[in-house]
Amino acid sequence: MELEFIRWLSERLPPHPNLKLGPGDDAAILRMAQGDGCVISVDLLTDQVDFDLARVDPTRVGRKALAVNLSDLAAMAARPLAAVVALALPREQALPLAKQLYQGLLPLAEQFNVAIAGGDTNCWDGPLVISVTVVGEVVDGKPLLRSGARAGDQIIVTGKFGGSILGHQFDFQPRVDESLWLAARYPLHAGIDCSDGLTLDLWRLAEASGCGAELDASTIPLADAARELAAQSIDGRTALDHALGDGEDFELILAVPSEAAGELVSRQELACGLSHIGRFVPERGLWLVDESGARRPLVPQGFTH
Amino acid sequence: MELEFIRWLSERLPPHPNLKLGPGDDAAILRMAQGDGCVISVDLLTDQVDFDLARVDPTRVGRKALAVNLSDLAAMAARPLAAVVALALPREQALPLAKQLYQGLLPLAEQFNVAIAGGDTNCWDGPLVISVTVVGEVVDGKPLLRSGARAGDQIIVTGKFGGSILGHQFDFQPRVDESLWLAARYPLHAGIDCSDGLTLDLWRLAEASGCGAELDASTIPLADAARELAAQSIDGRTALDHALGDGEDFELILAVPSEAAGELVSRQELACGLSHIGRFVPERGLWLVDESGARRPLVPQGFTH
Repeated sequence: MELEFIRWLSERLPPHPNLKLGPGDDAAILRMAQGDGCVISVDLLTDQVDFDLARVDPTRVGRKALAVNLSDLAAMAARPLAAVVALALPREQALPLAKQLYQGLLPLAEQFNVAIAGGDTNCWDGPLVISVTVVGEVVDGKPLLRSGARAGDQIIVTGKFGGSILGHQFDFQPRVDESLWLAARYPLHAGIDCSDGLTLDLWRLAEASGCGAELDASTIPLADAARELAAQSIDGRTALDHALGDGEDFELILAVPSEAAGELVSRQELACGLSHIGRFVPERGLWLVDESGARRPLVPQGFTH
Repeated sequence: MELEFIRWLSERLPPHPNLKLGPGDDAAILRMAQGDGCVISVDLLTDQVDFDLARVDPTRVGRKALAVNLSDLAAMAARPLAAVVALALPREQALPLAKQLYQGLLPLAEQFNVAIAGGDTNCWDGPLVISVTVVGEVVDGKPLLRSGARAGDQIIVTGKFGGSILGHQFDFQPRVDESLWLAARYPLHAGIDCSDGLTLDLWRLAEASGCGAELDASTIPLADAARELAAQSIDGRTALDHALGDGEDFELILAVPSEAAGELVSRQELACGLSHIGRFVPERGLWLVDESGARRPLVPQGFTH
């Protein structure tokens, strides 16, 4: 329903003078009276949809609620500044639960120098809801948008993909430092974070840029968890299938001009690793190229809200 | 539980270089690389606590979710810029409900020139939750804090008080324009918006300023709804009782130096009306002075979370 709703809403949201960049990218950019622009993003997590409070430690939920937003700022190459935290807490365990959520969230805030600027803490008879809004700032006037990829650009990703359900979905490192480091040194044309699925988010970036993308099957970096799930072979999906569609990898997907892409991958200056997994092409759509060179259309896979 | 939690949390939140003003006032102020400071506030409303979806039109809920945040910006004399909206929608009626919420929220956003900068729209099996974060900017480097009142300042309020449960709690006008207008022309020492109760919020302002306050009973502007509730006399409370403790008036409570306060009240330049209802005093606490001049201590009344 989210897609249909966003379509309905976007018709009612004309371009606004207060926004340098409106809704539709990983975050929006506000036009301040002075200054380079303030980047804002919100994510709301609910029990039973985004996590199961009966099975996961609340500290990991609190950490994740901030981390997903930091990942959105990373996808904009924005520096995080502050966050506000809104909670709806089940009444019977409100205080210990609130503390645990923050005990997960605060160390991550400290790690990324994010100030907790406020919050709203509520009790109710419903399940846990946690909504975090982060604010950051554009660095050197150069936000990283989804819309800047050009045919011929190479697809570069951080880290590995697939199997996030085995733990990575809570424990991932938002690629804030990596994004700022890369944006300061290399000509990045476009970027998105992989929250819903590698193919789905890559397709979104390509669509926003008005082009298509080709993935080289053999080059996709597979997480150990993707191999583990494939080995369990519950539904016949391969490790590659998991990498292409699982989502919640929270890695960066970048469009980089060829020369810089070559340098990036040969130098390997980041601990998380950088992989060259394909290229952007003129015709819209998504393709997978196997080792024999055979090319087949790929349906964008991942979590749709 | 909120108070206990905030005490626990504040011990874990040392002053942060990214914040010009941290949590504890009506909103926080971020220090941007350039610019005067970005003001941020969040409020989360839940079904059955803040409203009853079975009894109130969802458009009024959507409107209120933005309006309470604008009231917080008004209390800071900040100009609203943008808002992000996070929703947890009951699955069975998600799309029509989301549209109705926005149909109430969007006209208010337009009225106050607030850009909708993004959102996160989720469906789940729980009741409705709506969390709005607003961002604004400080005007001329002069935010209005809670902490600036001095003994001898006069207490000036906008509008009327009491009985908000009869409708005002949804249909109030956030005092954004009034606040900006007043802050530009008069020396306002401190301000807060009355969300939880006139005496409770006044007491908070006085406490933050390290002083006390005296209210003149006969001067408190009583809303028609306060008189109406008193006439129904369900619990024996007078119209004044309702004005002092009902809350959700969303009027401004201001600390103004005597001379300016006199001018303000005699000129009456605002359509909402301005009333002089008492003064700040050196000793901490809250008192009510009746027409005979008798002075009795007042227990701060209102909604505590």
